[in-house]
Amino acid sequence: MSLDTIRSDIKENNEPLSSVKWEDEHLILLDQRLLPESIVLLDLYHSEEVWESIHSMKVRGAPAIGIAAAYGVVLGARKYAAQEPNEWMKQVEDTCTYLATSRPTAVNLFWALDRMKDTAQKLVSEGGTIAALNASLLAEASAIQAEDEEVCRLIGVNALPLFQDGMGVLTHCNAGGLATAKYGTATAPMYLAHESGIHLKVYADETRPVLQGARLTAFELQQAGIDVTLICDNMAGMIMAKGWIQAVIVGTDRVAANGDVANKIGTYSVAVLAKAHGIPFYVACPLSTIDLNTPTGNDIPIEERSGDEITESFGKRTAPAGIKVYNPAFDITPNEYVTAIITEKGIVRAPFPENLASLF
Amino acid sequence: MSLDTIRSDIKENNEPLSSVKWEDEHLILLDQRLLPESIVLLDLYHSEEVWESIHSMKVRGAPAIGIAAAYGVVLGARKYAAQEPNEWMKQVEDTCTYLATSRPTAVNLFWALDRMKDTAQKLVSEGGTIAALNASLLAEASAIQAEDEEVCRLIGVNALPLFQDGMGVLTHCNAGGLATAKYGTATAPMYLAHESGIHLKVYADETRPVLQGARLTAFELQQAGIDVTLICDNMAGMIMAKGWIQAVIVGTDRVAANGDVANKIGTYSVAVLAKAHGIPFYVACPLSTIDLNTPTGNDIPIEERSGDEITESFGKRTAPAGIKVYNPAFDITPNEYVTAIITEKGIVRAPFPENLASLF
Repeated sequence: MSLDTIRSDIKENNEPLSSVKWEDEHLILLDQRLLPESIVLLDLYHSEEVWESIHSMKVRGAPAIGIAAAYGVVLGARKYAAQEPNEWMKQVEDTCTYLATSRPTAVNLFWALDRMKDTAQKLVSEGGTIAALNASLLAEASAIQAEDEEVCRLIGVNALPLFQDGMGVLTHCNAGGLATAKYGTATAPMYLAHESGIHLKVYADETRPVLQGARLTAFELQQAGIDVTLICDNMAGMIMAKGWIQAVIVGTDRVAANGDVANKIGTYSVAVLAKAHGIPFYVACPLSTIDLNTPTGNDIPIEERSGDEITESFGKRTAPAGIKVYNPAFDITPNEYVTAIITEKGIVRAPFPENLASLF
Repeated sequence: MSLDTIRSDIKENNEPLSSVKWEDEHLILLDQRLLPESIVLLDLYHSEEVWESIHSMKVRGAPAIGIAAAYGVVLGARKYAAQEPNEWMKQVEDTCTYLATSRPTAVNLFWALDRMKDTAQKLVSEGGTIAALNASLLAEASAIQAEDEEVCRLIGVNALPLFQDGMGVLTHCNAGGLATAKYGTATAPMYLAHESGIHLKVYADETRPVLQGARLTAFELQQAGIDVTLICDNMAGMIMAKGWIQAVIVGTDRVAANGDVANKIGTYSVAVLAKAHGIPFYVACPLSTIDLNTPTGNDIPIEERSGDEITESFGKRTAPAGIKVYNPAFDITPNEYVTAIITEKGIVRAPFPENLASLF
């Protein structure tokens, strides 16, 4: 796929950009670090390239990370032309172990890798040629991607009744089409509302330091013709006080068994502000983001990233040399701030421990 | 004054940079837009240049704006060589009316202009040559600056008992030495604590969109050897939840008669977060920032600035072309979120209407 094709897709079809694609026996990633200024497609042939792309956030968004990692396993399985199934299985396992080290917080990464490994084991036990194993493994990665698209659509369908015409809706970071196979999670009701002629006035936090809100959410909603206004993160409280926001909806990188939510840094502040203003705070995610093996938010590892993301994020130094910086990539929103979690299986409210468990 | 002189001042004396200076019959401003990368001094000979410097935020910080405006009146009074006192007085009045249009929110601007105009009227009524009038008007501007330095020191002295050794302190924007004649308002207790060997661990919000926290507060505290860590605005909630913050202290552009506080956008969010975490929220300011003629925060005009500050502030476009942007420069923190207002005359607590009025 050429850059021109993608550009015309955007212009003519008004469709969200696809951030992850398998084509011609390799993985194509849209480099999300360069949006919206440049639309650059990366051709990836090796699992090491997938690891680096996840690690450096060229691909980001919990579901998209999971999909990219699944294709990364396909590439890893083919690394050396295995002669027999056990050797092939070893390559799959090594690739999964390796890709799991790319980022620590989003559970979809581990979920997708576990699913690929389980599938590979099942395939080996069922017998077949190496070529057949490779083909079936690719089919599983494609299935993960296709399911994600349907799951996001269902999240939107389930969430839509929470949003009435004319409402102001705040979102943080990008839980949009770029973060998933399509539709996004937090953005799914926005896309479906737009298709149904329901007008939502969306406010997008720019989301420092990497500006996923400014670069990605504002971009994809604008492309889709949705009414979106960009603000700095620190303006959220003010517009809530003005009465402009009737609902907050965000995605998540991991939901613990008790309903605590890990998401992009700043989400917790937004949740506290929403509660102080009596505004519902919704979290949208597929079941694959809910991790019953993680008891509470305290058990979710929070990635800390380089201070350069804050001091030099735009190719220009914006803080004094040698300054100390604290740069956590995520924060935890305790379940008491969460009004509801919206999944493909429906809307979950408190008490979260019981109600989340009953989904599975 | 050469750049080299300023640079050596910083290095050798470990003194805060002076943002406003009168020297050789003209005004010298440190261009705060270019810090910390470049230390550039601007030589201003005309009141129009002062207007533009305030408007474009080359000089910013409520007290510093007031001081710069006072010197701007001196320059305006000399614009044409007036032949008689009434003509001179007209030039002073016209300059004051003109400079008052440079920015709407910080009341110190209007306070300083009123004081200069009142002084000019008094001088004219007392008689004297034009040269004597000019000299006396300059003396008044210098007095405003000298008083501000002493006032900030007293704010620090009054605030110091609120801060114990080892406390974590969060500040937003820059209410530092750069925003005032010296010491700053919110930073005054930090400088005095440092001089007294009391260790405060300061966290500076970077303060989008113009990054006064990253560029100015982090810079001046680092220069002074104070322990400062830079964070993004959206990390404030998380570090409060971690228990790292025992007090918040900010400056203000205007305090209404009822204790509502206008300050840099994002202050309100920080105040709500502080309250939710049981952390005291202090506001430091001189009496000249308290405006008993403004009944409540609703009566304070909030400046909206160009969206480019958000979408292109780093010398690089970081949001899609044509995106809608909302960019208020300030917000209002209602008095219920304010633990205390610290002035040169002491600490004021609720009920603010009575206790603020009693200061005057």
